[in-house]
Amino acid sequence: MLVLGIDPGSNHTGWAVLSQVAGRYVLHDAGVLRAKAGQDLALRLVFIHAGLLELIGRYQPDQVAIEAIFKHRSAESALRLGHARGVALLAAASHDLPIGEYNPMTVKRTVGGHGAAGKAEIQRLVQRLLGADRPLPQDAADAAAIAITHLAQSRFQALAKAAR
Amino acid sequence: MLVLGIDPGSNHTGWAVLSQVAGRYVLHDAGVLRAKAGQDLALRLVFIHAGLLELIGRYQPDQVAIEAIFKHRSAESALRLGHARGVALLAAASHDLPIGEYNPMTVKRTVGGHGAAGKAEIQRLVQRLLGADRPLPQDAADAAAIAITHLAQSRFQALAKAAR
Repeated sequence: MLVLGIDPGSNHTGWAVLSQVAGRYVLHDAGVLRAKAGQDLALRLVFIHAGLLELIGRYQPDQVAIEAIFKHRSAESALRLGHARGVALLAAASHDLPIGEYNPMTVKRTVGGHGAAGKAEIQRLVQRLLGADRPLPQDAADAAAIAITHLAQSRFQALAKAAR
Repeated sequence: MLVLGIDPGSNHTGWAVLSQVAGRYVLHDAGVLRAKAGQDLALRLVFIHAGLLELIGRYQPDQVAIEAIFKHRSAESALRLGHARGVALLAAASHDLPIGEYNPMTVKRTVGGHGAAGKAEIQRLVQRLLGADRPLPQDAADAAAIAITHLAQSRFQALAKAAR
């Protein structure tokens, strides 16, 4: 199963394509869609949407994983995040891809971090889990962490189903 | 100039197509895109996006008007609204349509209401401005109020420019 993890943001949207082979996470590709600074929000959304559609077309993922709603953000940052997240959900759902949503706490714990782990810590943990020589860019590492969480949960759910 | 006003919502997205002829507002059409209750947010976004693209194709508006960011909403409702708003901005910007954004206070004042005017009051004021026999559905009336605000501002700006 190929998973596209997305860390949406109205300026930078991280993405990572992962699978799991014999219990190990395999990174296929990852990157960050960086909208032009100072560009209108609507044009940045067009850029993010087009970028994600291009990635879905290129890698043909089976599923998409995305961070769940932040309840604790300020209304202003939540609204801005919502714009980018809406466009990411649209890109996935318009291709009939199943979408897994995970809250930040679950993502942090799955990659081995504590609840208060920052971006640099997640980056380091993801690098270790992937056995990579170099760390991914932070937003791409966040997207990889979300994809890892989805694979771990899917695997856990499959194991739980087999045990029944 | 034909304006598509949009009142985005993750369940109901109001829309109205208006122009201004000899100082009077002319309603071409209006309605509400109603997503299926209980449907996943991602699928509701696909529905809203497809609906707005269809309207843009059918009416070929010159410009789009949409409500600006609510700063005072709760983070949770702001995030949900952001999803729908992001998809609406995407639909407009992907067709290179200029987008006017107006805060609720400006919209209420433009249609003749006070700042605390509720939805029913806006509905009644819009009906009067349009000289309509029947009120529009509330979300469509909100969209019409936003379109009226855009037309009023555009006209005001054109007049100010001519006076210089």
